[in-house]
Amino acid sequence: MMLPAMSTTILKLACPDRVGLLARITNFVAERGGNLLEVNQFTDPASETSPGWFFTRLAIATDSLSSDLETLRAEFAPLATELQADWTIRDARQKMRVAIFVSRLGHCLADLLWRWHSGELEMDIPLVLSNHEQFRPIIEREGLPFVHVPIDPTADGGKAAGFAKVESAVAAAHVDLIVLARYMQILPPDLCAQYPGRIMNIHHSFLPSFVGANPYKKAYQRGVKLIGATCHYVTSELDAGPIIDQEVVRVEHYHQPEDLLRLGRDCERLALARGVRAHIHDRVLIHGNRTVVFRD
Amino acid sequence: MMLPAMSTTILKLACPDRVGLLARITNFVAERGGNLLEVNQFTDPASETSPGWFFTRLAIATDSLSSDLETLRAEFAPLATELQADWTIRDARQKMRVAIFVSRLGHCLADLLWRWHSGELEMDIPLVLSNHEQFRPIIEREGLPFVHVPIDPTADGGKAAGFAKVESAVAAAHVDLIVLARYMQILPPDLCAQYPGRIMNIHHSFLPSFVGANPYKKAYQRGVKLIGATCHYVTSELDAGPIIDQEVVRVEHYHQPEDLLRLGRDCERLALARGVRAHIHDRVLIHGNRTVVFRD
Amino acid sequence: MMLPAMSTTILKLACPDRVGLLARITNFVAERGGNLLEVNQFTDPASETSPGWFFTRLAIATDSLSSDLETLRAEFAPLATELQADWTIRDARQKMRVAIFVSRLGHCLADLLWRWHSGELEMDIPLVLSNHEQFRPIIEREGLPFVHVPIDPTADGGKAAGFAKVESAVAAAHVDLIVLARYMQILPPDLCAQYPGRIMNIHHSFLPSFVGANPYKKAYQRGVKLIGATCHYVTSELDAGPIIDQEVVRVEHYHQPEDLLRLGRDCERLALARGVRAHIHDRVLIHGNRTVVFRD
Amino acid sequence: MMLPAMSTTILKLACPDRVGLLARITNFVAERGGNLLEVNQFTDPASETSPGWFFTRLAIATDSLSSDLETLRAEFAPLATELQADWTIRDARQKMRVAIFVSRLGHCLADLLWRWHSGELEMDIPLVLSNHEQFRPIIEREGLPFVHVPIDPTADGGKAAGFAKVESAVAAAHVDLIVLARYMQILPPDLCAQYPGRIMNIHHSFLPSFVGANPYKKAYQRGVKLIGATCHYVTSELDAGPIIDQEVVRVEHYHQPEDLLRLGRDCERLALARGVRAHIHDRVLIHGNRTVVFRD
Repeated sequence: MMLPAMSTTILKLACPDRVGLLARITNFVAERGGNLLEVNQFTDPASETSPGWFFTRLAIATDSLSSDLETLRAEFAPLATELQADWTIRDARQKMRVAIFVSRLGHCLADLLWRWHSGELEMDIPLVLSNHEQFRPIIEREGLPFVHVPIDPTADGGKAAGFAKVESAVAAAHVDLIVLARYMQILPPDLCAQYPGRIMNIHHSFLPSFVGANPYKKAYQRGVKLIGATCHYVTSELDAGPIIDQEVVRVEHYHQPEDLLRLGRDCERLALARGVRAHIHDRVLIHGNRTVVFRD
Repeated sequence: MMLPAMSTTILKLACPDRVGLLARITNFVAERGGNLLEVNQFTDPASETSPGWFFTRLAIATDSLSSDLETLRAEFAPLATELQADWTIRDARQKMRVAIFVSRLGHCLADLLWRWHSGELEMDIPLVLSNHEQFRPIIEREGLPFVHVPIDPTADGGKAAGFAKVESAVAAAHVDLIVLARYMQILPPDLCAQYPGRIMNIHHSFLPSFVGANPYKKAYQRGVKLIGATCHYVTSELDAGPIIDQEVVRVEHYHQPEDLLRLGRDCERLALARGVRAHIHDRVLIHGNRTVVFRD
Repeated sequence: MMLPAMSTTILKLACPDRVGLLARITNFVAERGGNLLEVNQFTDPASETSPGWFFTRLAIATDSLSSDLETLRAEFAPLATELQADWTIRDARQKMRVAIFVSRLGHCLADLLWRWHSGELEMDIPLVLSNHEQFRPIIEREGLPFVHVPIDPTADGGKAAGFAKVESAVAAAHVDLIVLARYMQILPPDLCAQYPGRIMNIHHSFLPSFVGANPYKKAYQRGVKLIGATCHYVTSELDAGPIIDQEVVRVEHYHQPEDLLRLGRDCERLALARGVRAHIHDRVLIHGNRTVVFRD
Repeated sequence: MMLPAMSTTILKLACPDRVGLLARITNFVAERGGNLLEVNQFTDPASETSPGWFFTRLAIATDSLSSDLETLRAEFAPLATELQADWTIRDARQKMRVAIFVSRLGHCLADLLWRWHSGELEMDIPLVLSNHEQFRPIIEREGLPFVHVPIDPTADGGKAAGFAKVESAVAAAHVDLIVLARYMQILPPDLCAQYPGRIMNIHHSFLPSFVGANPYKKAYQRGVKLIGATCHYVTSELDAGPIIDQEVVRVEHYHQPEDLLRLGRDCERLALARGVRAHIHDRVLIHGNRTVVFRD
């Protein structure tokens, strides 16, 4: 659902399930006059291996609240502690800061920029980082900071030296999310660990099929009749992190590997754009290796 | 989401929006110990022509409730009255009674029966009614009551006489829902009026395209590249009632009208089955000519 | 199928059906040593109202042909005349000249430009025309000619004066195709008549639903569960010309009209891009109000 | 495209590519007066590892041919030999004989039977074979032969003894195709080898994801946002044979493994029905581990 033009406060929360949770949380909001614009809730039932878990996202009209943002957080903290909750309360107008990483293929980058321009992706872009120089002119023309960090295994210090610079650039940009928009480098595990649930990748296959390099070629060789793309969070295990969105398109015998690349680009652009939008609107909650995505 | 094997109580409600609604309703449940298994909520924002409206569906573990069903309803009534709510509280184990109407094309009927057999559609079928005899053997073999009511404009009393018998058969069967599974007769307005929001039709086009007869032929003539089917509630205006679900399939120039019939059948079966399932699980709320469908 | 990097000659033909047609045409090619890279053929069977009709598209490796392009055309002409065929023989390297018309919404324009840049749409763009100035900087930055032609009913000469200028601009640009990429003006019938089968529009609904203005608003009001976009050739009747491609996306009750706009944009971009690609690769043949599209 | 009611002769052929192939084959047909109702052709371009390959399927109006079926085959044989072609010429009225294997889950079986009844699948069913007795009443009620062959590793002779009986039953039924409609046994390699390209399986995942047992459970655990089904030919390697068709459906976080089973059933039914239809209409050609499918 489109965010209303009016100011909105977003409460996102996950905690162990128990009776009366939603009542307590909505009471908390109601007691402060909060007008609920949108409520999403999901209870993952208990299984043999895991207890029940509760997820919610509340969009509240900020103007209706008797407490300001800082007060609201302070007032909510004791309840959250009691519930053993992971939670955030954010002002939706406070745009997330999103870094975009890219290599030589620019279709996802171009798509994100276009949606950002159009207002479809309400975010700030404090950093575009690439291991190549080619997109510098486009990015600087947009008035965005472009940082070139070569990742060269033969350089002094090897790839690690490059990734140290990547790490510094990201830290300096104070980002909420890193988007790997066809960034063809594998991030080192310690960098992944610094940003859990905050690095998003677009992989050009419907995972878990065709992990790793050259998925379109592998898809062609396997003779699949559907190809796709997967938007997922990055963990230290390659292409194995929590999936946020996937998109597929039908292919026929007459599609050569080059056609798969062409058709797949649209899948990649759509799945990545939806994933970024969901993340920056606080619509994704991670639970183990699965995601709860309250779609809009 | 699949209904848990445990007994579930479903509260479905729509009312004018106001602050604190969800808190009051979830409090009501929490005060009676109710363990919420699934919560869906939607607030339709106010517009120039309509006030804001609130919709919810709560699935509660029956065993966790301190009140039995009748008590629960009695206790909820004052709150509902105050909220000016349309509401129901039902035991999910109490299956809805669904009449199926059919003419000469049996694919939707067969599909519904198969899903009923498999447990995918948890309903009772107290009546299968047709203006033709052809499906009597199949239906009676299933142990279901089959009623043949010819609709003959040249008969004594005309079509009205036939529909009077239809009305009696439906009344006698005490049905919660009438499903027109390719029933090729237009129900008279007074019959429609008797069962508002309780007569469901499958129309073989993606409405509002191709209202009325022969939609596949019209689709072929128009040269569309997608054909489809629409599951909707029946009102006195032909093919204009609230839409519950739609399904489409891509077609190419080499598909003749007969191919559209073939491909469309799968759209019809899927859209109708989803519509029936949503209705019998209390997942559909009608608001004006639109539906809120809390999907599972 | 992706066009091979090698030079390709495309023969496109439609004629009344008769026995031996494909043999005669492929013989013609084989006698000149032509290596067929791709063959598409469709026979529309005779019906009560129309005779059978034959459609084909042959992609021939140019280097394998013993005749050059002009000779080939001259040699084919007698056969084509005998067959009463509509036909073209083109060198696929000879890019079509495509004019893009746009008003205030730039998403389709941006998408076409991006695909043109990436090589996905192999065409020349001798003209971008708009009734507004806003996209001039973007277009001129690309090095493309931008022409602003206001369409003002209150101006001297009214809208007709504006369209006379449009006509001149198009004529001066020697275009093979005009693409209305969300151009919010209705072209006058005489302009449509000058470019039969050579003006392409993207309409923001799954036609024939929601002809004319504000289709997303109408779709919202009707409560459809699928919205879409239609790429079609323009005729003098509004939104009624031959359909080339359509795309749909599922919507839910929580999608407001503004959400339909957002989700529909992706449908529009995809359907238009596919339509343009099919046209410039000689993959579309028009027959009455239907199209034969040999997809790639 | 729907087969015309008139009698049709189908020529299916694959051979190494060379110049003039289609001309020679269509000449052969034209010389015998053959009226081509439908022509499909595909040339797989040469690559580093494989030569170019030519595939075609011609549907010819039988009544227009001056040769009868046997004569036609005899006349075509020398050309086919020269072209090193794999080929068949069949009368489309000569229905293929299809054996259906099933275990305990009957949804694919029921769907195939329904489509067979409706005329959508024009085939004979000389055998329904199962390792369980449960579907005997349904099958015998249809007047079809049901054979129960337990596959019991603890029986005398082990599973091999069971499969020897399976082999005999299939041989006795003279089948053109074996359809594994959720037959939960792995066929022994020698049985697979006896029927190359003539055993079809429906696997309940979008292969190559989730090979082997319990794919829905694995899909749930991986947290994919799309589940699917794959119709493929069986080879001695599990779930690795040539893919004919695939179908997917979107899933959300609230779908439990049981929901995936429910939603996946529709994918399985659709993908299998399309695969069977393509095979019995001579629309599938196998090339290495890929298929050419001329869709209708």
